[in-house]
Amino acid sequence: MSLIVQKFGGSSVANAERVYNVARIVTDTYAQGNNVIVVVSAQGDTTDDLIEKAKEINPNPSKREMDVLLSVGEQISISLLAMAIEKLGYPVVSLTGWQAGFMTDSNHGNSRIRRILTERLDNELSKKNIVIVAGFQGLNKYDDITTLGRGGSDTSAVALAAVTHADKCQIFTDVDGVYTADPRLVKGAVKLDEITFDEMLELATSGAQVLHNRSVEMAKKYSVNLEVLSSLERKPGTIVKEVVSVEKMLIKGVARDDNVARISVLNLPDTPGVAFKIFSLLAARKINVDIILQSIGRDNTKDISFTVPLDNMDLAVQILNDNLSTFGGSKVVSDDTVSKVSIVGAGMQTHSGVASKMFEALSEARINIHMISTSEIKISVLIDRADSAKAVNAIHDAFMPAK
Amino acid sequence: MSLIVQKFGGSSVANAERVYNVARIVTDTYAQGNNVIVVVSAQGDTTDDLIEKAKEINPNPSKREMDVLLSVGEQISISLLAMAIEKLGYPVVSLTGWQAGFMTDSNHGNSRIRRILTERLDNELSKKNIVIVAGFQGLNKYDDITTLGRGGSDTSAVALAAVTHADKCQIFTDVDGVYTADPRLVKGAVKLDEITFDEMLELATSGAQVLHNRSVEMAKKYSVNLEVLSSLERKPGTIVKEVVSVEKMLIKGVARDDNVARISVLNLPDTPGVAFKIFSLLAARKINVDIILQSIGRDNTKDISFTVPLDNMDLAVQILNDNLSTFGGSKVVSDDTVSKVSIVGAGMQTHSGVASKMFEALSEARINIHMISTSEIKISVLIDRADSAKAVNAIHDAFMPAK
Repeated sequence: MSLIVQKFGGSSVANAERVYNVARIVTDTYAQGNNVIVVVSAQGDTTDDLIEKAKEINPNPSKREMDVLLSVGEQISISLLAMAIEKLGYPVVSLTGWQAGFMTDSNHGNSRIRRILTERLDNELSKKNIVIVAGFQGLNKYDDITTLGRGGSDTSAVALAAVTHADKCQIFTDVDGVYTADPRLVKGAVKLDEITFDEMLELATSGAQVLHNRSVEMAKKYSVNLEVLSSLERKPGTIVKEVVSVEKMLIKGVARDDNVARISVLNLPDTPGVAFKIFSLLAARKINVDIILQSIGRDNTKDISFTVPLDNMDLAVQILNDNLSTFGGSKVVSDDTVSKVSIVGAGMQTHSGVASKMFEALSEARINIHMISTSEIKISVLIDRADSAKAVNAIHDAFMPAK
Repeated sequence: MSLIVQKFGGSSVANAERVYNVARIVTDTYAQGNNVIVVVSAQGDTTDDLIEKAKEINPNPSKREMDVLLSVGEQISISLLAMAIEKLGYPVVSLTGWQAGFMTDSNHGNSRIRRILTERLDNELSKKNIVIVAGFQGLNKYDDITTLGRGGSDTSAVALAAVTHADKCQIFTDVDGVYTADPRLVKGAVKLDEITFDEMLELATSGAQVLHNRSVEMAKKYSVNLEVLSSLERKPGTIVKEVVSVEKMLIKGVARDDNVARISVLNLPDTPGVAFKIFSLLAARKINVDIILQSIGRDNTKDISFTVPLDNMDLAVQILNDNLSTFGGSKVVSDDTVSKVSIVGAGMQTHSGVASKMFEALSEARINIHMISTSEIKISVLIDRADSAKAVNAIHDAFMPAK
């Protein structure tokens, strides 16, 4: 007998018909002799509707009360899914985050799971119940409701799989797996049968929307057997694991991130500690800096350029201008018309020429590269946003010729 | 410094504007130097909308899952009201039923409060927080969410007032107090300044909608200083207490209950135990029987007539027909065109002639009386429903001549 954790996102339970679709997937899995724990998100637009309700009353509510409000979204989903499973004639019980034992820190709106107390879960599983758990939510040490922030339900599912030593954690989405590029953007995009945790992680942080990087990090840390698959089509998805069986492809995917902006600080003194001052100021305001480029010093000055998420650009520019005198630059300039395009693949570690092949593809498509950043299994370039779709297609064609 | 419990129903928090109205009442009370605990119901139609969602998925869901679903209604209200109070600049915290320590039995959908663990409440009050509590909900010993059933939020408020030894429990509604009759029905209806628990209880069980009898019973048991008042107009309401200061009025109110039907079982054997058999059958199916009339035996047979809630009539008739042979009647007849009209007042205990004055008023209005029932402080009559409005006015005029 296996224990399987299945996670369904908001669009998978958006209406009564889809709730039944999920109920059938779950009960089929149970009927095959498995124990099943199901994690669900809030239905479709519920979270947005609740945020709207809150803003109408207070544009700047406390995060604690926001968590009390938002957590009802998943509570609605778990009870409705349980009712559908009851109707199909299977034993089922729904559990909120706190009932399922999710203990988190007190960072309301973006909490981290500290531990999961599995007594209730174990008890329900031993009674042969299908257990439906509200994703995205937990309880802090003061008995206050918390939420996990973006991608929280994925993280809930992986954490449950880790703590219960589940045989498999299936993340159901509206796509049928992980693709070599966004299928809506690239005609020849191919679904991957397998991908490593590290590759998935680089893809997740490079703009691919399939899995949130927090959940992938956790799956890697606890060696959770992860699968991404479709809730609408019954067919195998993409397996995410530590080592994939055969490293057939040089790269696993091409990802695009349009939520990026470039900032440059010009004419900084060419002395030690300048970069530290700049990036510690931004880190203190929780602004993530990605690609960093420092010009070679000349005339005892240098320029530093870097990328930040697009929605942090204005704040970052303001912070830097406010502190320009402390680190001694002449000017802060920003550009919000750029995109980051990345290729990811463990295969490139052992193959030379991957970067040059990427640059060649971009050159042939007459696309100018502003910045370059590399890791062991990823190469990212910053280009004009207007070129980003063309770039993804050109790179994809170069590495993965159409079948 | 006083501790005041304030309860607001669903219509009082139906939209953002009304939530602010409530927030202002609460913060004004707090600004006057009081500790304040606020109990709120689900907003307007939220509960009906949630029931609709459930029925779409499963017309007959388990009561446990229904409680998980319905309890989100109050959770939305408490967070929104807390956000409004934050906006007004006051310290506030919202608590769900389980966070506020409401421990109940496991009768899902209609639970009774067993006890309230006040540690969290005391803690929040000592921090000078306004405490917003979700009414209508609690937790059973298995850590499952329960709901209290009809009138549950009133009961939550009174229970909190009892356990915290509050100085006052204010129930805010859309009327400004308890009236001698329904003001929509009787032109000369007068608002009462004071009423006893027993009178309020008799009125509540006689069709007056102001307070649910469970909450009044609890207020009487724990001597909670209760006030019914309007959330829309700032003026004193009606005080409900053990003994009212001066017994000025012979009767306190005239109430009408249209949710009533009469059932008769004809030609029963005139032997002991027959009534017991009938009423224990109905009690087993939780059908409440109100007025009971037994005819004087003749030819060794008798008839028994009684009233039940209108929506229980068909079930009661079916049960009686199914068991007719076991108690030996000849026929079950029912009438769903009747109403119960009652007068209530502690004053009638010490005044003779109250009943005859009531019957005289009905006689003069040419209204036929089908059944009569009396308690120490109440007289009820069963009449044709078509006459009920006329009857309430005639009786009200007889006892409370227009000022």
